[in-house]
Amino acid sequence: MKRANQHSKDELEIRKLADTKYPIEEILRRRCSTLAFADRPVEVEKLRRLFEAARWAPSSYNEQPWSFLLTSKGENHEGYERLLSCLLPQNQLWARHAPVLVLAVAKQHFGSGGTSNHYAFHDVGLAVENLTIEATALHLFVHLMGGFNTAESRKLFEIPESHEPVSVIAIGYFGNIADLPAELQQRELAPRKRRPFSEFVFSGRWGHKTNLIPD
Amino acid sequence: MKRANQHSKDELEIRKLADTKYPIEEILRRRCSTLAFADRPVEVEKLRRLFEAARWAPSSYNEQPWSFLLTSKGENHEGYERLLSCLLPQNQLWARHAPVLVLAVAKQHFGSGGTSNHYAFHDVGLAVENLTIEATALHLFVHLMGGFNTAESRKLFEIPESHEPVSVIAIGYFGNIADLPAELQQRELAPRKRRPFSEFVFSGRWGHKTNLIPD
Repeated sequence: MKRANQHSKDELEIRKLADTKYPIEEILRRRCSTLAFADRPVEVEKLRRLFEAARWAPSSYNEQPWSFLLTSKGENHEGYERLLSCLLPQNQLWARHAPVLVLAVAKQHFGSGGTSNHYAFHDVGLAVENLTIEATALHLFVHLMGGFNTAESRKLFEIPESHEPVSVIAIGYFGNIADLPAELQQRELAPRKRRPFSEFVFSGRWGHKTNLIPD
Repeated sequence: MKRANQHSKDELEIRKLADTKYPIEEILRRRCSTLAFADRPVEVEKLRRLFEAARWAPSSYNEQPWSFLLTSKGENHEGYERLLSCLLPQNQLWARHAPVLVLAVAKQHFGSGGTSNHYAFHDVGLAVENLTIEATALHLFVHLMGGFNTAESRKLFEIPESHEPVSVIAIGYFGNIADLPAELQQRELAPRKRRPFSEFVFSGRWGHKTNLIPD
């Protein structure tokens, strides 16, 4: 096996393509949660497109329960360091190279103090995936993290009780795998795996696989 | 104002484009929760691509907590009618024209009987948005519904207690707005609205709008 630093950038891009059985859009196929971020900053014009993409996601009753705390090394270094400090140490290890970190937040109720929104996290997921796909189209990489101290992030960014921190989103360009610690290189180079269709697409009743979508 | 049946298909496609301030991918801009589905069936090849797209979404610990019960008028009419019967009457009114209905289901725990997965709904959202974007690329329309009887869907499709019904997804081609009841025509033709950036993208602390992304 070649060492990581012997892979060319193109080889790595190809390696990381989703191993699909049926064809899908290239920007969906290229999406990948990398650990290897470059220090290169993200252009403001691109950041704007990411949040525009998130903005147009669908949501239950068009509530748009998503909010984002945007921090970038270049524009808001102190905020960036504060958000970085909320991450679990094993995430800080690689995420500190990403030039942009975003805290995604969910509004827990409809309107102002209305009934509980059962779809708050779900709809934040819809918006975040839109952001991720727009990022991929712009040749950026996105890595979502649930591994952070939500209570600490609430305190440090003054998130009100009506809202809940959901994830920290690392955004940036693809970097150099050889710069990662050995253990992370291994994770980065491991084959990407997904469940076969027969395990998650059913017909008629639970667990009954459909003939329409063979594995 | 023109009557709905005087709009050409192209005019309607343009009308429904998201009114973005910053440019985004065309397939994100075209995505729209229509109420006007055509009776035209969805090709099996296209359905396969939709679930392939969902399959490659990211998820917490790569748990892939999503499952889908796929019903189609053509292939599984009885299952389709059963899922249709779970929808609230106001959703049945338009959703019954969509040739495909899918029940999205979330696995509530990691592994087999592990700890609770806080991200189950969120990650189903990620997968469903991938499916939706692939559908849009294939000139299909998707409309997500939370308005259905989850207990009834659990019973009718034998969903185990370890899993929770999330949404019903209507999939099909764009139909004729003039065929909709007057009230739904009005909803379909209403301008699409989203919150301005200053209300949901913050910097430094909660509620503090960022200069990076002007409204």
